[in-house]
Amino acid sequence: MSLIPPSEVFPPPERLLLGPGPSQVHPRVLAAMALPLVGHLDPSFVALMDETKRMLRAVFGTTNELTIPISGTGSAGLEAAIVNLVEPGDEVVIGVNGVFGTRLADVAERAGAVVVRAEAPWGEIVPAETIAAALGRTKKPRLLVLVHAETSTGVRQPLEDACRLAHEHDALFVIDCVTSLGGCPVDVDRLGVDAAYSGTQKCLSCPPGLAPITFGPRAVARLRARTRKVQSWYLDLTMLEKYWGEERVYHHTAPISMNYALYEALRVTLEEGLEARFTRHRRNHEALVAGLDALGLTMAVAPERRLWMLNSVRVPAGVDDAAVRRALLEEDRIEIGGGLGPLKGRTWRIGLMGESSTGDNVRRLLAALGRILPRHGLACDAGAGVAAAARVYAAE
Amino acid sequence: MSLIPPSEVFPPPERLLLGPGPSQVHPRVLAAMALPLVGHLDPSFVALMDETKRMLRAVFGTTNELTIPISGTGSAGLEAAIVNLVEPGDEVVIGVNGVFGTRLADVAERAGAVVVRAEAPWGEIVPAETIAAALGRTKKPRLLVLVHAETSTGVRQPLEDACRLAHEHDALFVIDCVTSLGGCPVDVDRLGVDAAYSGTQKCLSCPPGLAPITFGPRAVARLRARTRKVQSWYLDLTMLEKYWGEERVYHHTAPISMNYALYEALRVTLEEGLEARFTRHRRNHEALVAGLDALGLTMAVAPERRLWMLNSVRVPAGVDDAAVRRALLEEDRIEIGGGLGPLKGRTWRIGLMGESSTGDNVRRLLAALGRILPRHGLACDAGAGVAAAARVYAAE
Repeated sequence: MSLIPPSEVFPPPERLLLGPGPSQVHPRVLAAMALPLVGHLDPSFVALMDETKRMLRAVFGTTNELTIPISGTGSAGLEAAIVNLVEPGDEVVIGVNGVFGTRLADVAERAGAVVVRAEAPWGEIVPAETIAAALGRTKKPRLLVLVHAETSTGVRQPLEDACRLAHEHDALFVIDCVTSLGGCPVDVDRLGVDAAYSGTQKCLSCPPGLAPITFGPRAVARLRARTRKVQSWYLDLTMLEKYWGEERVYHHTAPISMNYALYEALRVTLEEGLEARFTRHRRNHEALVAGLDALGLTMAVAPERRLWMLNSVRVPAGVDDAAVRRALLEEDRIEIGGGLGPLKGRTWRIGLMGESSTGDNVRRLLAALGRILPRHGLACDAGAGVAAAARVYAAE
Repeated sequence: MSLIPPSEVFPPPERLLLGPGPSQVHPRVLAAMALPLVGHLDPSFVALMDETKRMLRAVFGTTNELTIPISGTGSAGLEAAIVNLVEPGDEVVIGVNGVFGTRLADVAERAGAVVVRAEAPWGEIVPAETIAAALGRTKKPRLLVLVHAETSTGVRQPLEDACRLAHEHDALFVIDCVTSLGGCPVDVDRLGVDAAYSGTQKCLSCPPGLAPITFGPRAVARLRARTRKVQSWYLDLTMLEKYWGEERVYHHTAPISMNYALYEALRVTLEEGLEARFTRHRRNHEALVAGLDALGLTMAVAPERRLWMLNSVRVPAGVDDAAVRRALLEEDRIEIGGGLGPLKGRTWRIGLMGESSTGDNVRRLLAALGRILPRHGLACDAGAGVAAAARVYAAE
């Protein structure tokens, strides 16, 4: 056991974060992280909490009063949604077509739920008929939970039919929008979503550490009707809402600096405007896809199902997944993600989330790939990717 | 639902944080918070994780391999310790003499434990005979859990006898050292503590958001011997240890910036040296107590049980607790804490934690109290507090 500290400040290497998150953080948000602290019951902090709730409602597209950041990363938001809405023995239908649906099922089972999986292959959506069939296998489903943006595969799950099906079965409709929030429409109230959760480090471009969550009237009614305490004290919304509500009852010490950062990230988001932000994400996605196609690469998801902020690309036959990612990181300082689960070694995941979604970043990545791929077994015209992307931007 | 963001950057008011946490943060740590992000599997971040584990072992006084920060605040550390070590039906003995013992019992019951409370009045320690009696009421106690530094009362719990008693009953000995770690000796290995958890925002003087935890060989053996999954996925140490260990298996996206900050806070702590840091906390505590005494205030805890970093002071009869705290905040920009639970309105809690524990801060608070208290019904010599503290410093 050594008592000698490292002699140097940690020097983060220069990185362009184009993986599945965290994304690039706006300098204004980084500056907010370094502001001096106030107490978690300070009047100034209470004012910041109120504005944060208001801005979170705007990005979720909801008037839900219970809209707050959970003091953990996106996965804590996932667990919070489940443990607050589930009691032991409840039937829960979960769409499983990637890592996060799988995780949801695991979390729900740990909470004592009887999980019915609505399964689809990784890289595809869970079709409405599969969801209907799964609901049909239950007696009294408590929840239907779907992953809006499956970060592990790049698939955008349609929500309309599923929401209708859930409500026909008197189940609450819950969505994971960790990767979608702030990058494409989520529209909690318009769709009729009962509960949704997200993370800060994707399209909101804030460092990881908080998980925005929103509970609508039916979800809150479920919370009130519980017959036993929420199994997690830390994530118990019946207590958290008293700290974030009028009462300001101390629960845990809020992560002050992370809340400063979220506040500033939401300001940046709303200053840009949600529609403009969505358009930016769509455009850069389209330019990236055109460029990848020109380099001879193939997207792993059907066009109409693709996420704008997380692009899943097939690793070409004969190309070493990890070697290409390593070259990108070491030569060009660009991080992209590898595949997970059954897609490990078979896909790359390119994130264009929040501040990471820019034309410059698309061109920089395409130029790097054009240079690196031929050395790793994929013959291609080095400049073709950038040129194809340029044509997309020029056509606007 | 308004889409218009606040027009201004959040301006944190100037505060001197002398409450129960968060404490003042070192400028080097604030600077670390604003560093650009890298990915949670970036080789540079992996190196930072390894150094962080090494430094955490040094401050805990342990060689335990499983010593990591949990991605939540101190209360998440509390819940992690319990849910990882408890299975439904397990008997757990918990010392309850304040808010945090009460919380531990609540968390353990939510995890399905049969909780036996070893109770003592708030403001006193839990005596060894009470602990022995509580252990005697169990058949096969799984854990004995005590709060080393009860932040709600300012009491330092002795650990030696309790540790021996726990092990005589073949129970694991678990301690909450949220407020003590980095401010007074914790000595996990020397004492024989099996598991301990803390928070970053007290004597480590890092912003709130992470909870250092350490599990010794017996606790790890218990973890391995579990017959069912940990009820919390987010806090499941069997999975977290694979991310923080050699395998680097993705679990959740680590809060990158908070880990930068903890790294730097640990560097600051070890550069000062643990013994020097403890001595500083003790000296400033002694000077504060002398000053408060000279102002006619009375400590709420017996001398030999007082924490150095959290000073619990009786609110004099006829003095309005909240009015004095408001005057301190508004006139002098100093935050101190009020009492909790049965001590609400009856005590003030003055934190001298980490960067907050300085002679200048002691003098500034005593001067402010000397000026404010006479206006609120306590006749005192305004300068007596500062003079008494000066005598303590001069006597060294």
